[in-house]
Amino acid sequence: MLVAVVGVGLVGSEFIKQLLSIPAGSSPFKLVSLSSSSHTVFFDPASAIPSVEKWKTILSESSEKPDYDGLTEKLSSLINPSTKVAIVDNTSSDKIASLYPQWLKAGINVITPNKKAYSGDLGLYEKILSVSKESGARFLNESTVGAGLPVISTLKELVATGDKVQKIEGVFSGTMSYIFNEFSTGSPDGPSFSSVVSVAREKGYTEPHPADDLNGFDVARKLTILSRTIGSSSLPPLQSFTSVQTASLIPPALEGISTGDKFLKRLPEFDADFDRMRQDASAEGKVLRFVGVVDGVKGEVKAGLEKYPTSHPFATSLGGSDNIIMFHTERYSPRPLIIQGAGAGAAVTAMGVLGDLLKLV
Amino acid sequence: MLVAVVGVGLVGSEFIKQLLSIPAGSSPFKLVSLSSSSHTVFFDPASAIPSVEKWKTILSESSEKPDYDGLTEKLSSLINPSTKVAIVDNTSSDKIASLYPQWLKAGINVITPNKKAYSGDLGLYEKILSVSKESGARFLNESTVGAGLPVISTLKELVATGDKVQKIEGVFSGTMSYIFNEFSTGSPDGPSFSSVVSVAREKGYTEPHPADDLNGFDVARKLTILSRTIGSSSLPPLQSFTSVQTASLIPPALEGISTGDKFLKRLPEFDADFDRMRQDASAEGKVLRFVGVVDGVKGEVKAGLEKYPTSHPFATSLGGSDNIIMFHTERYSPRPLIIQGAGAGAAVTAMGVLGDLLKLV
Ligand SMILES: NC(=O)c1ccc[n+]([C@@H]2O[C@H](COP(=O)([O-])OP(=O)(O)OC[C@H]3O[C@@H](n4cnc5c(N)ncnc54)[C@H](OP(=O)(O)O)[C@@H]3O)[C@@H](O)[C@H]2O)c1
Ligand SMILES: NC(=O)c1ccc[n+]([C@@H]2O[C@H](COP(=O)([O-])OP(=O)(O)OC[C@H]3O[C@@H](n4cnc5c(N)ncnc54)[C@H](OP(=O)(O)O)[C@@H]3O)[C@@H](O)[C@H]2O)c1
Repeated sequence: MLVAVVGVGLVGSEFIKQLLSIPAGSSPFKLVSLSSSSHTVFFDPASAIPSVEKWKTILSESSEKPDYDGLTEKLSSLINPSTKVAIVDNTSSDKIASLYPQWLKAGINVITPNKKAYSGDLGLYEKILSVSKESGARFLNESTVGAGLPVISTLKELVATGDKVQKIEGVFSGTMSYIFNEFSTGSPDGPSFSSVVSVAREKGYTEPHPADDLNGFDVARKLTILSRTIGSSSLPPLQSFTSVQTASLIPPALEGISTGDKFLKRLPEFDADFDRMRQDASAEGKVLRFVGVVDGVKGEVKAGLEKYPTSHPFATSLGGSDNIIMFHTERYSPRPLIIQGAGAGAAVTAMGVLGDLLKLV
Repeated sequence: MLVAVVGVGLVGSEFIKQLLSIPAGSSPFKLVSLSSSSHTVFFDPASAIPSVEKWKTILSESSEKPDYDGLTEKLSSLINPSTKVAIVDNTSSDKIASLYPQWLKAGINVITPNKKAYSGDLGLYEKILSVSKESGARFLNESTVGAGLPVISTLKELVATGDKVQKIEGVFSGTMSYIFNEFSTGSPDGPSFSSVVSVAREKGYTEPHPADDLNGFDVARKLTILSRTIGSSSLPPLQSFTSVQTASLIPPALEGISTGDKFLKRLPEFDADFDRMRQDASAEGKVLRFVGVVDGVKGEVKAGLEKYPTSHPFATSLGGSDNIIMFHTERYSPRPLIIQGAGAGAAVTAMGVLGDLLKLV
């Protein structure tokens, strides 16, 4: 299989490293193209594979600018009954996501951890489904939810084998996981909300502007992907991730503040509100967790802060910035199927991407 | 894909039901043969598929006896570039397991929840590996560990993408899970060991002879499968599941007792021993769990009773007869990847089998 990589940031670089670490003799893959937002290279499939040590230099020294129509054309000309082709999109770009239908139509498989196409406009998503069905080229997106954790593949298998998904409930954001594991342990007291968010930012767990995590959009995107993967008529046909009922944690007065620094400076004004929520939860023997729910019975998809008993796995088993996902289904009932572990980080995300690629060979 | 089913017991019947529930228009599968230990039928691939309602009658009324050489021949004559063939072994038979090399050699894919071939004699296992490599026919065995839980596929992906498995640790037996979740909750007291085993047997959670669970062999078989799937040189090359260090729970004086009834009658003589272990664990703030460990660092594979703090997921998160499996790897470190849920039952086991079949199309 010939592989073209678009996006060579944290995940992209690690993906290339993992791909090139498969011993050449037993690797089913041949890297044929690399693109950053400003450079691109295309290797003759007959030539040697660039080494882990050298690809960065080769790419940065290339004078060619990315040209995705050209890439589509070159790659599709290489497809034949014994040669498959895949593009791996390791960007977070909407523009790249909008190219998937064109790629799939040309018979190019698309693998990505980029949530944009699968959680954005329903039109694009439906186009991807129909074009893939027509051409037979596949799209796989395991790493869009829970990074390397087997979330999407497990869900697909439940659905394909006829199980009925009653509810998926989970902590889907590593950032939110870290924040509430620190903030709410069951005790009525603890560090202030703003101090926990500040520490999380210092540790690199949040986006530069913490509001980009606290708005809950990342969770809403993941829920959109899960809901669409279930594809049940009992679930609302989400026009976009913005259709998910999302209870943002940004205090209304702080909406639209331009920088992370300014945001963090004012966040302490609202510590008392978060303190009160923590106390209320504690009084009921509960902790606070920012969760996402896809409820196939109620036909509801929502993200927000919820309370869980201190004996619940979201309280006892979670730690660090782990994700945890519970699948309540007809077969996994009354006790759910649970998957837990790191839901972010370049190594595990790239692993999910490479795992998808391996499913195609 | 043409599918032949061998073994139509609990899992086999449920598998056929799930397979035939895929809408005919979109099903990639065609059921061509069914075999019990005494009857067999072969359907002309061009004829209609037997219905969920009728296959049992058709099979039981067939006058043909199973003939596996004949089946191999018929199936391999049907293989062509556009038609794949798979045999699904839903028996627990050693005899059927010994046929896998012959089937794989003929180009027939083999799917099974039967642990025998993968946990038995190393010679058979190596033969399966080499024949499959030669012919290109695949063998998949997701349901041999954790039933429908994505245990083997996750492990294969970790290994294939270059992660290093440091330790797999888990509760792999639904029976042992139930027994110790009931027996040891952290408190020094509780129901007697023999009473818990008796109730488990009444509920159908144990084999008719509880010693067949308490000997730990089922766990040793699963560990053998995991260890071989990792295939690392740092792990002992297990000649068979009997090479696993397994600490049986059968009191030595009760070894070899012929029936489950006689065994249960004498088990109370040893309640005091189990009570003492529970008290010792409780004094350390711990619970007892029967676990399996594949330790890639120490090069150790072992099954036995261990103590875990009451705050450990094996104590807090487990319930019912759930399995729980923790993967400690280079990438999932310091916090492991965890998979939990029902690890037995016809519906979830058949789902894992059908899921494997779906991976082939
Ligand atoms: N990191 C994680 O833990 C994680 C977990 C799950 C999913 N993901 C997803 O994985 C993707 C990559 O994440 P990341 O952490 O690697 O982000 P990153 O470090 O910001 O890398 C993204 C890369 O995409 C490149 N890019 C943007 N537009 C492009 C274009 N039009 N053509 C070619 N390249 C373009 C950027 O290249 P330039 O530098 O040249 O602008 C950048 O290096 C994202 O969709 C993210 O949501 C990440
Ligand atoms: N049940 C579970 O929860 C579970 C979970 C994980 C894995 N598994 C595995 O799944 C497999 C099936 O389990 P099960 O619960 O379905 O057992 P089961 O109900 O005992 O069914 C096994 C069937 O195999 C048939 N059989 C035995 N030898 C045969 C032969 N030579 N040719 C054709 N059929 C033969 C038997 O048929 P006759 O009745 O005609 O003798 C029996 O109906 C076992 O390997 C088990 O370890 C089961």
